Amino acid sequence: MNRDLTIAEVRLTPILVADAPLLNTQGVHQPYTPRLIVEIVTADGITGLGETYGDTKYLELARPLAEWLTGRSVMDVNSLFALDLGVDASRIEGQVDAGGLRGVQSADKLRLSVLSAFEVACLDAQGKALGLPVHALLGGKVRDAVEYSAYLFYKWAAHPAGVPAEPDEWGAALDPAGIVAQARRLQERHGFGSFKLKGGVFPPDEEIAAVRALAEAFPGHPLRLDPNGAWSVETSLKVAKELGDVLEYLEDPTLGTPAMAEVSAGTDVPLATNMCVTTVGEIKEAFTRDAVQVVLCDHHYWGGLRNTRELAAICAAFGVGVSMHSNTHLGISLAAMTQVAATVPGLHHACDSHNPWQCEDVLTERLAFTGGRVAVSDAPGLGVELDRDELARLHRRWAEDDGSLRDRDDAAAMRAGEPGWRQPVMPRW
Amino acid sequence: MNRDLTIAEVRLTPILVADAPLLNTQGVHQPYTPRLIVEIVTADGITGLGETYGDTKYLELARPLAEWLTGRSVMDVNSLFALDLGVDASRIEGQVDAGGLRGVQSADKLRLSVLSAFEVACLDAQGKALGLPVHALLGGKVRDAVEYSAYLFYKWAAHPAGVPAEPDEWGAALDPAGIVAQARRLQERHGFGSFKLKGGVFPPDEEIAAVRALAEAFPGHPLRLDPNGAWSVETSLKVAKELGDVLEYLEDPTLGTPAMAEVSAGTDVPLATNMCVTTVGEIKEAFTRDAVQVVLCDHHYWGGLRNTRELAAICAAFGVGVSMHSNTHLGISLAAMTQVAATVPGLHHACDSHNPWQCEDVLTERLAFTGGRVAVSDAPGLGVELDRDELARLHRRWAEDDGSLRDRDDAAAMRAGEPGWRQPVMPRW
Repeated sequence: MNRDLTIAEVRLTPILVADAPLLNTQGVHQPYTPRLIVEIVTADGITGLGETYGDTKYLELARPLAEWLTGRSVMDVNSLFALDLGVDASRIEGQVDAGGLRGVQSADKLRLSVLSAFEVACLDAQGKALGLPVHALLGGKVRDAVEYSAYLFYKWAAHPAGVPAEPDEWGAALDPAGIVAQARRLQERHGFGSFKLKGGVFPPDEEIAAVRALAEAFPGHPLRLDPNGAWSVETSLKVAKELGDVLEYLEDPTLGTPAMAEVSAGTDVPLATNMCVTTVGEIKEAFTRDAVQVVLCDHHYWGGLRNTRELAAICAAFGVGVSMHSNTHLGISLAAMTQVAATVPGLHHACDSHNPWQCEDVLTERLAFTGGRVAVSDAPGLGVELDRDELARLHRRWAEDDGSLRDRDDAAAMRAGEPGWRQPVMPRW
Repeated sequence: MNRDLTIAEVRLTPILVADAPLLNTQGVHQPYTPRLIVEIVTADGITGLGETYGDTKYLELARPLAEWLTGRSVMDVNSLFALDLGVDASRIEGQVDAGGLRGVQSADKLRLSVLSAFEVACLDAQGKALGLPVHALLGGKVRDAVEYSAYLFYKWAAHPAGVPAEPDEWGAALDPAGIVAQARRLQERHGFGSFKLKGGVFPPDEEIAAVRALAEAFPGHPLRLDPNGAWSVETSLKVAKELGDVLEYLEDPTLGTPAMAEVSAGTDVPLATNMCVTTVGEIKEAFTRDAVQVVLCDHHYWGGLRNTRELAAICAAFGVGVSMHSNTHLGISLAAMTQVAATVPGLHHACDSHNPWQCEDVLTERLAFTGGRVAVSDAPGLGVELDRDELARLHRRWAEDDGSLRDRDDAAAMRAGEPGWRQPVMPRW
């Protein structure tokens, strides 16, 4: 046991990764979205990988953290979370992030979103140094594969003319037929057994029709609809009533715990959230008011894999279900999600992942979805390897950007296609 | 990394360990109390240690578990908890354990109390195999020493005449002066800075007088009183009012969450518990009713060190404090408590430990309380070594027992000294 687990170096690489023109209630995905790749290198030359949001404010926090970590042990994860990162709460509290899609910003959430990449990188390095998969460091897997759902989006055929972008192979999906065709293709390619539609894009009746079309095309398969809080309580209850027979759950129909609690009280359709419960501080009110029945954990928001397990334990104690949320992410995070999900006993819903939409990644070998599942790697650490050429290429894209893409802004991306478009006032319907 | 982490052998050694004649509301400690020592031996010959209750029903569950574990990986802790141990709930649900001092028995609590020793033994073996202290396996310590409080007991000078027992060096403590003298001696010997009196033994006014005497003898030091649920709501509120100015918290003044909630609503004195919140299933009601302000975790009840961390996370999310409960225990459990307590960020109260009362232990070198604290070992695993001669001696005592001591029964022990004594009906006062 003569390993040296001291952190010799921390490398931060901001990148811009291609993204499809996926629509949501706040706009459309940029053609390139910022991500941050974290490498933690031990004195023995072992490298642990982590990934998180790459917007400027995340980067700003990551830099001093990288410095602080250097010279410490890769095992020393708890003290990382005890560290005061000096987030200026007044600068960000109450702001909405990426057009509100990440919920209301808070100092705690920003801090934890940055820490998550370091925590995952530490766990990856630990696993590699100790010869153990990350799941073993979390107590061991209780399943050999983790189920994901097909993440369906209304989308344009391409990013707006004149905007630099990668080619899109998926085509448009702007009505029920388009959504069903997309679902079929995702199912054929990856074998998904459940389907989630990102809603809040069109008036509720059109989205109800899309879910109905999915229910007809895939009878008996679990379906979900997520309008990112675009609806009033009244509209939420109407949709719940109309789709109650086919929905596994309704995700964030409306904004905020009080409104969610009102919807919850008026329907038997379970409500899921990744918007009103995104930090520990939001749990108590939501759970005591029975505002949500499923929390969709995003290990980025929650500060990593150990916190994800703790959140699952909190949910279990209160009889609240747990599954996983996703935003645009690459294979490092997919591996991390899969490792932790493998260890959570009460994971009764397939996890979300944007990853099938990513045409680029920073891994030498991408993780495959087979039968809708990602196999749980038993290789040391996360079981993935960094493609340094690809990382360098995506970093060059970031370095050469004039700053217009370095902070994700779905509303600005929307206006590039529809100049008159205005960010909706919520509730939109 | 060519370690073999397969479990080659699991050894279970029931023992009887000497205990002082400490009084509580349900009787008196037996002269010898049963404990179970678990050794998990890897294929490489590394031995991990665990310790739990040794009563017959714990032993009965431990045997099939030991068999099940053999051949599995010492890393594979989560699946241990997913295992159905087939506890016959009808046999134990609603029973009170050790005269009610461990709260109401439940299938879950019994199962977890047994599992805890195996989980700790697995962590100890992991740490020894990987060259890491247990705290590092839990994310790393956030403090270098863990504070404990002096655990004060009303006690007899000796076990009843004619009952085989070890000599007692502490003498009687049956009034305020005796309690203060005991506190002084414990403080002189171990440096404790806070004091807990096990109450429920004498009428409340006498115990109020004892706490007042402690407050005078140790001004400004945190004081606690724990009558193990012996009081009515009315009595609890009266005591809280009379001692509100000196109590850090009042522990389990009355039995059950509804009664605790009533007391809690009527006083500003924080209420602590290790009786109404002892399993995950009891958390929701207690927290939503604000019945308790501090949960005293016992890693035996809760299924080990990882569950202890999860409980601490649940408490943190609900603004409930956390500290540690103790029953008669040896050094393996003290090491385990210290390792996990070192990793819990929000540990704002000194932990309880009976260990200073133990004149016997199974370690080659006992852990010391210095300045009221136990230093957090950075040696691999728990950092303790088994004294095999002593283990064998205490096991012989168990093997030679006619069965009368193998299941702790404080009421029977009480009747040995006071033949007419009857177990009190609760609330006693």
